Amino acid sequence: MKTLFIFFIFLTGLCQAQESPALTGEIIDLTYSFSEESVYWVTAKEFELEEVAKGKTEKGYYYSANNFSTAEHGGTHIDAPIHFAENAQSVEEIPLEKLVGAAVKIDVSDKALNNPDYLISIEDLKTWEKEQGQIPLNSIVLLQTGFGKYYPDKQKYLGTTNRGPEAVKELHFPGLAPEAARWLVEERKISSVGIDTPSIDYGQSQEFGAHVALMTNNVPAFENVANLDQLPATGFQVIALPMKIKGGSGGPLRIIAIK
Amino acid sequence: MKTLFIFFIFLTGLCQAQESPALTGEIIDLTYSFSEESVYWVTAKEFELEEVAKGKTEKGYYYSANNFSTAEHGGTHIDAPIHFAENAQSVEEIPLEKLVGAAVKIDVSDKALNNPDYLISIEDLKTWEKEQGQIPLNSIVLLQTGFGKYYPDKQKYLGTTNRGPEAVKELHFPGLAPEAARWLVEERKISSVGIDTPSIDYGQSQEFGAHVALMTNNVPAFENVANLDQLPATGFQVIALPMKIKGGSGGPLRIIAIK
Ligand SMILES: [Zn+2]
Ligand SMILES: [Zn+2]
Repeated sequence: MKTLFIFFIFLTGLCQAQESPALTGEIIDLTYSFSEESVYWVTAKEFELEEVAKGKTEKGYYYSANNFSTAEHGGTHIDAPIHFAENAQSVEEIPLEKLVGAAVKIDVSDKALNNPDYLISIEDLKTWEKEQGQIPLNSIVLLQTGFGKYYPDKQKYLGTTNRGPEAVKELHFPGLAPEAARWLVEERKISSVGIDTPSIDYGQSQEFGAHVALMTNNVPAFENVANLDQLPATGFQVIALPMKIKGGSGGPLRIIAIK
Repeated sequence: MKTLFIFFIFLTGLCQAQESPALTGEIIDLTYSFSEESVYWVTAKEFELEEVAKGKTEKGYYYSANNFSTAEHGGTHIDAPIHFAENAQSVEEIPLEKLVGAAVKIDVSDKALNNPDYLISIEDLKTWEKEQGQIPLNSIVLLQTGFGKYYPDKQKYLGTTNRGPEAVKELHFPGLAPEAARWLVEERKISSVGIDTPSIDYGQSQEFGAHVALMTNNVPAFENVANLDQLPATGFQVIALPMKIKGGSGGPLRIIAIK
């Protein structure tokens, strides 16, 4: 009894020690690098890096620096709510609590890889819940369509290598059905959502109903998320930190998982 | 006995639940927003946001988007080792383990606020250790000069409102002494270092010895870090996620603390 009691005290101590934020665990980078290969929407300004300095200076030390320009939306990036909802949060206004926390991954790649116009349905979400349990409130939800393996091959990933307004109708990649987006917002109160395609709405979308459903409720979306195949279904944390652009409708995102 | 045993099992369960990385705790944003007010080096291209769309579309939904351009080094940003060290890591190559983890804050503002050319010395670091204990190996070290309170007032924060090569000699703000940078690298094996001024070297530096000491050892630096006054000396974690620019010498940084 006494031994057990001492062990009990020891165990209590262990529990308390874990109360301070523990950032141990494997870190997985869910971010693609920005380069001339980065995938952008067919109408968006692509990433450009301009060399300003590179080499030894007069004083003897080495120095390199660059400028760059880009659309807010391209590569691994965030859509701030104001991207599709007037008066909603711009990127610097998104509470960090919606970008940091427990996450789940929902893998629909068995269906989506066979259909580039696949829409992730409420049924898909409920099927996942039957196996994994209910999506906890305030979760970060990552959607794996399997299309990440095509990045940055534009023909396979976007459905076209053409650019400009005429290329929009050639876009083919899976996305989240608008009603499933609404269900995640209303029934599961999700913090944010991410996907391994160029957009949370599928390529053939005309009305961008998933964007509207999410963003009118101040739920941000992460797009072109990398390496989702390296994540389990549950039991990991996501930290998604966007560039803090004042008034921005989105911007470059560095997103990692800790498992 | 039986009751205690059941409680013991319950407690074990609790402990196991806490084994997954816990990201509870208060989140503090250590990042300034990017805008036309952002502070840049006097020779660097400043941040520019260009509106691309804003308002209701033909289809009925609201849509806003922007482009932007900037130097890699300005506002709250990271210096990748290659910024001052040939063949060292570029920004996308920095291991995430050097950007995420336990941190300490060293406050020298009582001295630095009285001397805009103040150099943080090895003595300052040892004084801090006398009070707080040795800086743990692999720490992220944040240096508080107090100059953060002047941001973005260029006269007070940089020492000048002028721009261009001629303005460089007018720069006055505190920094880390080169020998103290070397000491942190060699004696404390720090992961990374941050400061609430425009540069890890002080404004009057000619040789950028702190940059060179850090970066030739692949230690990155965070500059223009915000809100250091909100942090304790120890007992918090830092997550510093830079924009992942392929070959970048640095870039916009979103940096947060969890305490
Ligand atoms: Zn977007
Ligand atoms: Zn810099």
